[in-house]
Amino acid sequence: MKVKRAGNQTVVFADSPVILSSYTVVGPMEGRGPLGKTFDQVWPDTLNKEKSWEKAESKMLQEAMQGAVSRSGFGKEQIDFLLAGDLLNQLISANFAARQLGLPLIGLYGACSTMALGLAVAGMLIDGQFARQVLVGVSSHHDTAERQYRMPTEHGNQRAICAQWTVTGAGSVLLGSEGDGPRITAATIGRILDFGEKDTNNMGAAMAPAVADTILNHLKDLNRQPSDYDLIVSGDLGKVGLRLAKEILLKSGVAVGEEFSDCGVMIYDAAQDVHAGGSGCGCSSVVFAGDILRKLRAGTFKRVLFVGSGALHSPISCFQGESIPGIGHAVVIEG
Amino acid sequence: MKVKRAGNQTVVFADSPVILSSYTVVGPMEGRGPLGKTFDQVWPDTLNKEKSWEKAESKMLQEAMQGAVSRSGFGKEQIDFLLAGDLLNQLISANFAARQLGLPLIGLYGACSTMALGLAVAGMLIDGQFARQVLVGVSSHHDTAERQYRMPTEHGNQRAICAQWTVTGAGSVLLGSEGDGPRITAATIGRILDFGEKDTNNMGAAMAPAVADTILNHLKDLNRQPSDYDLIVSGDLGKVGLRLAKEILLKSGVAVGEEFSDCGVMIYDAAQDVHAGGSGCGCSSVVFAGDILRKLRAGTFKRVLFVGSGALHSPISCFQGESIPGIGHAVVIEG
Repeated sequence: MKVKRAGNQTVVFADSPVILSSYTVVGPMEGRGPLGKTFDQVWPDTLNKEKSWEKAESKMLQEAMQGAVSRSGFGKEQIDFLLAGDLLNQLISANFAARQLGLPLIGLYGACSTMALGLAVAGMLIDGQFARQVLVGVSSHHDTAERQYRMPTEHGNQRAICAQWTVTGAGSVLLGSEGDGPRITAATIGRILDFGEKDTNNMGAAMAPAVADTILNHLKDLNRQPSDYDLIVSGDLGKVGLRLAKEILLKSGVAVGEEFSDCGVMIYDAAQDVHAGGSGCGCSSVVFAGDILRKLRAGTFKRVLFVGSGALHSPISCFQGESIPGIGHAVVIEG
Repeated sequence: MKVKRAGNQTVVFADSPVILSSYTVVGPMEGRGPLGKTFDQVWPDTLNKEKSWEKAESKMLQEAMQGAVSRSGFGKEQIDFLLAGDLLNQLISANFAARQLGLPLIGLYGACSTMALGLAVAGMLIDGQFARQVLVGVSSHHDTAERQYRMPTEHGNQRAICAQWTVTGAGSVLLGSEGDGPRITAATIGRILDFGEKDTNNMGAAMAPAVADTILNHLKDLNRQPSDYDLIVSGDLGKVGLRLAKEILLKSGVAVGEEFSDCGVMIYDAAQDVHAGGSGCGCSSVVFAGDILRKLRAGTFKRVLFVGSGALHSPISCFQGESIPGIGHAVVIEG
């Protein structure tokens, strides 16, 4: 059988799927950050009149997905699949948002890597001729994630200096087989790497090895150099993880400088006191669907490697003494 | 663009992917049930020397996946993707099992529908020429699910008569582009239906509308009748949900009798005191990878419609007053 693959982990799209439209909704803190103007909607607060943060997150994701659909000009009946995910137990943000949309749903879990994973799977479904249009939607919410993974926000407990701040945001992208826009040309599905990090306040360190592994395998599979990309952007390693990933790459013979950045580093200003930066699958989804896609559409970037990074633990696995497995999924987007 | 689709929700495989091998591991209660002899491994107890039920579930899934791989004769390097999921928060059973295998991982969440969802997505990745072989692995564990969704097992609280018993089991299937075995010829990806059921002890009722919806759309998309199948099997509606799904189908003009059964009804004997039957994504995965595949291989069944059913709630969504969204994903397997 002929396969659309290169090397061990990379798939290559024959008829590169197009990103037809995108839409982002964020919380007030993200709106005040350096990328604030790149987002489509900024909520005045993190509840926005909903009764709980969980309901607010689901509403935010729903608005992002409906925004991407209505901006595309396609009707809902022309969208063949919805790929959606979030950080919460049993993906409730995604499931309750999907309930409102009524589209055939494939639920994905890749922690903070979910947008990149969704783009990769959507690309395969379209390029494989199983769909004409596929909607991808991903969200996270600071306060739902705190309740889920750490301590309720109301505790007001002190955060570690290496900790990242979960972004309140939802990003959605509509991909299609035909049309104008940036194109997904390849994707590298990651494997789990776990170097034994057990500190849930240091997820950058837990994810860095897997991100570096995926970048190295991606470059090897396609016989490319970092200089073949205008931007390599992970989401979300934060400051600590980004530095570690660069170190691992350097030790593996791949030197990357400023052209390797991270959505978690980009989304907040140092003055916003978020310590190591942003995280949560909303982070990479709104930075990708906002700033990065704008620059690809404008021609500022010709080719970007977007590497979603996920920490695949749960509070229970950590309580039981397990370390944190990391994963990285990469997609190539060309303007 | 030419698409491999029929109707609104169904994809049709041009080069139907083959189920090359399968492997099942179950707990002692499932081993004593009417399908006990169809499973490859029966554990003597639900811990099997692991320190926690969560570690046991992950080990069980790992053994099922390794069993399917080694039985197939393929090396790990010939497997392009692992699709895996379970019921636990952040898919820890799947993620920790995947850590041991080192394969490129796509994490799926469809609650009890995950095996059917995994088969559908694996089929698209293979038929779309993005993979030669894809491994699918899905598990659930009675005691980890109780801790997660209801009360710790140690509470010993009384179960409602309409409640289902989460199966302790893991099933894995290796699919390939070429070879001998039953073939996946079509798949119908479901959309969420929610008729307002809020009783988490009655998940059969919550899932029945979505299962009926997927069956109706599947039959319409392919212009088929229930009699075109030797077996229509949901997983897992239990006794209550199966009866409701049949009623909904009948009201929609589709009469089905004994040829429509349910993995949750099949896996336990009435004398095992499980009330409405089995549930959990391990249930449909071990019944499918065990009994159903055996009968497809033996020629007892020529064509089966396997409809995974998922209840997409979480304890938090229920505490916040939400009803339970249901989903059904269907795959057609031909012997």
